[in-house]
Amino acid sequence: MPMKKFINNPDNLTAELLDGYVKAYSNKVALQSEKLVVRAQPKDTSKVAIVTLGGAGHEPALSGFVGEGMLDISVVGDIFAAPGPPKVLEALQLAKRDAGILLVVLNHQGDVLSANMAMEMAKKEGIKVKMVLTYDDIAPGADAPIEDRRGLGGCVPLCKVAGAAAEAGKSLDEVHAIAEKFNSNTATLAVALKTATHPSTGEAIFELADDEMEIGMGQHGEPGTGQSKMMTADETAEIMITQLSQAVDAKSGDKLLVMLNGSGATTLMELFIVFRKVKESLAAKGIEVARSMVGEYLTVQEMAGFQMTVAKLDDEFLPLWDATCDTPYQTVR
Amino acid sequence: MPMKKFINNPDNLTAELLDGYVKAYSNKVALQSEKLVVRAQPKDTSKVAIVTLGGAGHEPALSGFVGEGMLDISVVGDIFAAPGPPKVLEALQLAKRDAGILLVVLNHQGDVLSANMAMEMAKKEGIKVKMVLTYDDIAPGADAPIEDRRGLGGCVPLCKVAGAAAEAGKSLDEVHAIAEKFNSNTATLAVALKTATHPSTGEAIFELADDEMEIGMGQHGEPGTGQSKMMTADETAEIMITQLSQAVDAKSGDKLLVMLNGSGATTLMELFIVFRKVKESLAAKGIEVARSMVGEYLTVQEMAGFQMTVAKLDDEFLPLWDATCDTPYQTVR
Repeated sequence: MPMKKFINNPDNLTAELLDGYVKAYSNKVALQSEKLVVRAQPKDTSKVAIVTLGGAGHEPALSGFVGEGMLDISVVGDIFAAPGPPKVLEALQLAKRDAGILLVVLNHQGDVLSANMAMEMAKKEGIKVKMVLTYDDIAPGADAPIEDRRGLGGCVPLCKVAGAAAEAGKSLDEVHAIAEKFNSNTATLAVALKTATHPSTGEAIFELADDEMEIGMGQHGEPGTGQSKMMTADETAEIMITQLSQAVDAKSGDKLLVMLNGSGATTLMELFIVFRKVKESLAAKGIEVARSMVGEYLTVQEMAGFQMTVAKLDDEFLPLWDATCDTPYQTVR
Repeated sequence: MPMKKFINNPDNLTAELLDGYVKAYSNKVALQSEKLVVRAQPKDTSKVAIVTLGGAGHEPALSGFVGEGMLDISVVGDIFAAPGPPKVLEALQLAKRDAGILLVVLNHQGDVLSANMAMEMAKKEGIKVKMVLTYDDIAPGADAPIEDRRGLGGCVPLCKVAGAAAEAGKSLDEVHAIAEKFNSNTATLAVALKTATHPSTGEAIFELADDEMEIGMGQHGEPGTGQSKMMTADETAEIMITQLSQAVDAKSGDKLLVMLNGSGATTLMELFIVFRKVKESLAAKGIEVARSMVGEYLTVQEMAGFQMTVAKLDDEFLPLWDATCDTPYQTVR
């Protein structure tokens, strides 16, 4: 039985998808030496560069956010696989500038390994670079050791805020501090209803019974906090937003960013129904949803489910969030 | 077995999703008398209003495109069902202005019936309104009678172009002429791989064998030109773009808009791979892809498949296409 996906050669997915992506948005992005997605019009080198890395198969993340006001370079790995250290080093060499580079790394073993090795080599070459590690997943508990907390969709708003700070001409230390602060004020939980097909192998990514859901899974179906019987949208929303608002210690009067990030096959219809309950639930506690994003930002093929991310927005973050940006999959006018 | 969707009461889907939608984008849209989505900041009444209608369940279409530079009012029906004539009349009464109203209607029996009845009643009340009927589907043949050609995703770029013309202060006759001309230069084909679940009934929308695909289906699984064995992305792209470019009579030197509109569960990864082939295929004929959109604009729940739309762009359309707009799901800076 053939895989029910619009693909050609399963071994050539990343090269073909990147080629198609930069062809579709050639006014905004370009491809450099195979797997580096760069801006079509590079940012002035007097400003800090923002570089990130990660496996393909999660589109639009992260290459979809390369452009004015967000990322400078996205280093792309194969499907669900971290790019190797040499490719990350190449990106750092390309981005090299006196203003320095912020390297945004999602907390997954392969990505962290590549990033650390590349950083070490880059520093030996005199490249000025600082790393921010994102670990917004609170499935193992908000107080769990960092190594247990995965980097989930919270990296997308973090790149928006850090990108705006860089565009505004802030120094590397300032951009790094803003990114670190944003990360420590961000929490994410994932929920899954149906598995997805790995587009290279054709295998299901994980198993889930017909009447069950799972809260707390990782980006590729890594185990969560446990499976449960299907719940309604309101029940699901209430459980997730309660844990998330506690994790960031949100109190009456606080302002939150809420992002609902569809995993692939979950409709906007459903995400709007969930969002409705989230807003009501927070309002009852005096917490304001000051900004929101509802859509597909970091997907896992055609998985049914979503990630809910909350981030505390203060007077430093709000103008950075609202600053104009112009990337293929995030535009602020 | 419970339906694997994040919903509450299947009979209350539209009200809940619209409530959640306007809560998520309260800076841009608002809800008026239940099922009319309007702009948060109404357009100056000296300018032509753009109103459209259609069933829910296709998010972000069409309410996701209410806002500066596109729609003024979206009249929403229940899941996959046209809104009734009184609701459409109410929208026309609300939009009433000396400059007039353009009513954009997708060619589906229920929508057309409601629109015609509402138009008749509105005209008796002295409301100035003209209709554009979109029938971009070429599955029955580009020369088939209009009644056989459905309105598919081509309505989205049409609303962008008509909305920009209205925002620029053009008269109702001019905006209407631009919309008619855009429609007659637009062609769409749909392809489906997997069915979706009707969120009210829990039933599959249509049937398709495990190793088959179908080109030419309607928005809700209405029959297409025939089922075939699964093809590769390149084969699928080649068949579709050949038919579409012939339908709009695209010749060497022409500029096209190409929209790949995911139906719900088809990844951006796949759409990029398809886009790559489309661009190559057109380039070989000397036809330029001058502008493109790749994403989910008009969905059918979690159906796997996509619509490919092409529209000829001339010197009148290009600046309208590029004009700034600011809606929840389409922003041009």
